[in-house]
Amino acid sequence: MKVWILDNGSIVIEHTQLMWNVPGPQVRIPSYAVLIEHDDGLFLFDTGFDLEHTNAVLPFELPEQTPEQTIPAQLELAGFAVSDVTTLVNSHLHFDHVGGNKHFAGLKNVVHEQELAQARHHEPFEFFGYSDKTWDYEGANFEPVSGDLELAKGLWLFETPGHTIGHYSLLVTPESSAARPMLFAFDVVYTQPALEKGIQPGFHIDPRAGVRSIARVKEVATEHGADIYFSHDAAAFTTYKHAPDFYEL
Amino acid sequence: MKVWILDNGSIVIEHTQLMWNVPGPQVRIPSYAVLIEHDDGLFLFDTGFDLEHTNAVLPFELPEQTPEQTIPAQLELAGFAVSDVTTLVNSHLHFDHVGGNKHFAGLKNVVHEQELAQARHHEPFEFFGYSDKTWDYEGANFEPVSGDLELAKGLWLFETPGHTIGHYSLLVTPESSAARPMLFAFDVVYTQPALEKGIQPGFHIDPRAGVRSIARVKEVATEHGADIYFSHDAAAFTTYKHAPDFYEL
Repeated sequence: MKVWILDNGSIVIEHTQLMWNVPGPQVRIPSYAVLIEHDDGLFLFDTGFDLEHTNAVLPFELPEQTPEQTIPAQLELAGFAVSDVTTLVNSHLHFDHVGGNKHFAGLKNVVHEQELAQARHHEPFEFFGYSDKTWDYEGANFEPVSGDLELAKGLWLFETPGHTIGHYSLLVTPESSAARPMLFAFDVVYTQPALEKGIQPGFHIDPRAGVRSIARVKEVATEHGADIYFSHDAAAFTTYKHAPDFYEL
Repeated sequence: MKVWILDNGSIVIEHTQLMWNVPGPQVRIPSYAVLIEHDDGLFLFDTGFDLEHTNAVLPFELPEQTPEQTIPAQLELAGFAVSDVTTLVNSHLHFDHVGGNKHFAGLKNVVHEQELAQARHHEPFEFFGYSDKTWDYEGANFEPVSGDLELAKGLWLFETPGHTIGHYSLLVTPESSAARPMLFAFDVVYTQPALEKGIQPGFHIDPRAGVRSIARVKEVATEHGADIYFSHDAAAFTTYKHAPDFYEL
């Protein structure tokens, strides 16, 4: 099994969004997708943000994305075409995780059933989060799921709501015992320090669930001896292998 | 019926606390209590913050409170002694609403039953909010309540959770039709602009409930033709009558 981290560029957010109610300077954060080559197919988790959408609707987030940082270009860097992907999974449906969904028209799209419903009829305070609706095109092929599930051998989705109502994290367990499991917490917390301090993002729908999801991420990591990968941690991101480099599990 | 607004001083908060996820400069906000002389007794709603506690635990909020802005001094300004108060009500149990509770030892203290439980066993993100526990002294005489209720003729408590789990707002309806009803929204929103924009405070436990509570405050105000009084609106506060001046209803 091979795992690529696909660099998708970066945006700028308030410190109180990085860590709820904790003041500090604005911070530029990375955005990325995860590509996994598996015996059962080629799985893509999230698709980053769309530059045009972000410039139009969230220009204050000062998006930066080169042509090489789009999802199709990143797939190519990993040696694949858009048409090679067999399953698209979204951890949740915020604009910076769905921006490239539109490139996979008709492809099976696994998403939490509550996330799908909420993204279509969201709370007013979720306006910016769910502002990119291009994932919900005519003929989209959703596979709504719920509960924890093993998507394919060694690819575990586990429910971690709080940031959004139907948020999933991903655990990748290796085929060989030599490799370490990888745990993609996605947006349960944005950074390593946020996990250590137990501080969820400033954007959330259910902060009590958020507290439980932070505990769950820690428990799953401990139980499986997994390395946690943070969704929006600029410092940690520099230490990750980026496509075309990859992790072998 | 007479209604006094008791000036309790001021603190400084982040703009993202005034309005969730909306950046801006820090803002100094007022804190006040509400005293109502009623045929059934003398009712005190909230007791502001304790200067010593705030300086010790939340010094970054730069509290300002003169000796004349303590609750005993403000009561005296309105012509009463601490011992004249017959019922103490807390909209919720955050430090800036309970700081003077300790002066009313043994007095009946009306509070939402869920608020009481939550303040004693709060979420980690509620640490600062519930940091002043001096209201929970040995021999405290709580009257836990739930649901909407008419505390005394014309004094209506209605549930408005979101900011906290057991938050109450207060509607005061006049004895004579000449006066306008007064609606104390407390911390459903902090300011008039926040109500107009529908933006709840950055500190909250259930933002979905917060959205419904904002709608409820607007509905109650419209239904009763009430003026809304904002808990932490520096601009609006200058337009309110302050003790010893009062409203007659």
